[in-house]
Amino acid sequence: MPPAPTDADWMAAAVALSQRGRPTAAPNPNVGCLIVQRGRVVARGWTQPGGRPHAEAMALAAAGDAARGATAYVSLEPCAHASPRGPCCTDALIAAGVARVVVAAIDPDPRTDGQGTARLRAAGIAVGTGVLADAARAAMAPWWTRQTRGAPFVTLKLATSLDGCIALADGSSRWITGERARAHGHLERARHEAILVGRGTLLADAPRLDVRLPGLEARSPKKLLLTRGGTAPEGWTAVASPESVAGVDSLLVEGGARAASAFLAADRVDRLLLYRAPILIGGGKAALGDIGLADLAAAHGRWSLVDSRLLGSDRLDVYERIRKE
Amino acid sequence: MPPAPTDADWMAAAVALSQRGRPTAAPNPNVGCLIVQRGRVVARGWTQPGGRPHAEAMALAAAGDAARGATAYVSLEPCAHASPRGPCCTDALIAAGVARVVVAAIDPDPRTDGQGTARLRAAGIAVGTGVLADAARAAMAPWWTRQTRGAPFVTLKLATSLDGCIALADGSSRWITGERARAHGHLERARHEAILVGRGTLLADAPRLDVRLPGLEARSPKKLLLTRGGTAPEGWTAVASPESVAGVDSLLVEGGARAASAFLAADRVDRLLLYRAPILIGGGKAALGDIGLADLAAAHGRWSLVDSRLLGSDRLDVYERIRKE
Ligand SMILES: NC(=O)c1ccc[n+]([C@@H]2O[C@H](COP(=O)([O-])OP(=O)(O)OC[C@H]3O[C@@H](n4cnc5c(N)ncnc54)[C@H](OP(=O)(O)O)[C@@H]3O)[C@@H](O)[C@H]2O)c1
Ligand SMILES: NC(=O)c1ccc[n+]([C@@H]2O[C@H](COP(=O)([O-])OP(=O)(O)OC[C@H]3O[C@@H](n4cnc5c(N)ncnc54)[C@H](OP(=O)(O)O)[C@@H]3O)[C@@H](O)[C@H]2O)c1
Repeated sequence: MPPAPTDADWMAAAVALSQRGRPTAAPNPNVGCLIVQRGRVVARGWTQPGGRPHAEAMALAAAGDAARGATAYVSLEPCAHASPRGPCCTDALIAAGVARVVVAAIDPDPRTDGQGTARLRAAGIAVGTGVLADAARAAMAPWWTRQTRGAPFVTLKLATSLDGCIALADGSSRWITGERARAHGHLERARHEAILVGRGTLLADAPRLDVRLPGLEARSPKKLLLTRGGTAPEGWTAVASPESVAGVDSLLVEGGARAASAFLAADRVDRLLLYRAPILIGGGKAALGDIGLADLAAAHGRWSLVDSRLLGSDRLDVYERIRKE
Repeated sequence: MPPAPTDADWMAAAVALSQRGRPTAAPNPNVGCLIVQRGRVVARGWTQPGGRPHAEAMALAAAGDAARGATAYVSLEPCAHASPRGPCCTDALIAAGVARVVVAAIDPDPRTDGQGTARLRAAGIAVGTGVLADAARAAMAPWWTRQTRGAPFVTLKLATSLDGCIALADGSSRWITGERARAHGHLERARHEAILVGRGTLLADAPRLDVRLPGLEARSPKKLLLTRGGTAPEGWTAVASPESVAGVDSLLVEGGARAASAFLAADRVDRLLLYRAPILIGGGKAALGDIGLADLAAAHGRWSLVDSRLLGSDRLDVYERIRKE
């Protein structure tokens, strides 16, 4: 017989479930919940599109009576504040009669922040916290970032040649990468609430920025235009600076060079998606302009490779910004 | 019992042996030879530094009497022309009494080109040809390229940031990549007969271009300087254009941007070594200037990824030029 799963094993499953709601849970955090009774999973739940029902509500509804005496694994502290949109999850867990609740990350929302776990304990429920907290926070990075930093989680996408060009000198950039890389880029669009390009890219490419993947067309995000001019065509929202993007948890910056450089110079990029085609351009448009780098030493230690894969003959490298808290 | 090895299996071993002489065999081809008697390897040989003794001579000397009635696997057709530096290998194989000779590639040198195998057959030896010929040619690419094209096999090395810069705008480039990548670069130097840089790099970096690896110091290659000026400092040889590099089988071009672009524009690059550090520079010196690209379509289908690995936190990607013969 294999060894019994640990709390961390069950929590890993709850964190994996939380990812299912990541593209759609806004404005709420994408949470995962697992209900375990005598070593067996009796129900699972994750935050639904638009943010409700919450993960715990979904799991409790699926568990029914089987929740009584069970352990609930939740990737974020259950909410302690009632809302006009539904009951609070601490009360629901208490009412369902769970014996134990294991929590990954404590909710930074001041309306909960420790009050959810306190209330559970007051009701006689055993509570564990901090199990896989880093993994849980990473899984809800967009919501977490906006909640704690007041700014969206920003992904910068660049499609370049081996020599780092995003277009020929004459501006032509269709196509640098192949079909599989471009399809992957569409999937990334579907994972974001908003996409931004600079006015130069709007004028040069008139990009549609929609999700052209069967079944995901409805996921096309809001379109933001970076411009000091203040006006934007219909269907677009003008944004005056990287710092003034508001009202979204996750933003995908799709270029061009000046828009990308502005976000990097403001240290507003959390994740890099680098699609690289096996071609040389030579003397083309550079991926980036000045980003305010003082010297080479300052460039090191900022980015960590988190994923790397071949997409057809192109390579995708994903980097995350290393931030010392 | 595992199935008996095929001719291709034995030849793969001979081709692997041939690689041992690749950095040092010039001006001769780096050849590998395996002598097999009743399913067992009785001797192995490869071209020695400076090109002699040949692989067959080494293997026959090691085999002694065991060569009688054996099969010899040779990655290149045995030479048929006597030389003041030693006897010809076809005669040596005949004298040793081998029963069969299997050859990968036929020697393009007009002094042999089919005459080696003809002479073996005339002496009553069974001869097979064309076994793993492509792999054998790839293993001796530098010699083969110079022999058939009259030009060296050229590797271009570039060390860039993620955004394709080889230096900051002010020219500083120490260091973009880390220690492990730089040590790998030194190993590549040891594999080449000559290294070239443009005069801009000589002035900016005064590179020593030697092999700073314990035990390999003696392998430091010839130093070539690309310049239209015609003069070079002591220890360097001036070269007026990519087309005028002569007298070497393998050349490593180490930059900078204009030298690299000149070799690419002349379509003189056979292999790319791209070392890429996980840093962003922004507005730095581009890896390449104009390489004469007409449009994006013309950039595709020229380079094929043959190796990719992490060296510390840097990535090395190796590409080879796809040439339709
Ligand atoms: N391969 C790829 O991944 C890729 C992706 C996208 C684009 N591209 C190529 O990139 C080229 C366009 O790049 P680009 O650099 O010329 O233009 P861009 O970055 O798309 O747009 C530049 C404009 O953005 C606005 N802007 C920039 N920084 C700002 C800041 N800090 N605050 C407010 N507004 C700011 C300004 O608009 P205003 O002038 O209106 O103030 C500026 O003119 C095109 O050739 C396109 O094909 C390639
Ligand atoms: N990260 C890296 O991998 C790396 C590697 C090397 C260098 N670098 C950096 O690159 C920079 C230097 O690059 P660069 O582009 O300025 O200079 P460069 O390419 O090293 O040298 C340019 C010179 O090469 C000669 N040249 C170029 N094309 C030629 C041709 N077709 N025929 C004959 N001669 C030709 C010319 O010399 P004459 O003027 O004498 O005729 C020209 O001035 C430095 O900042 C260095 O640190 C980086």
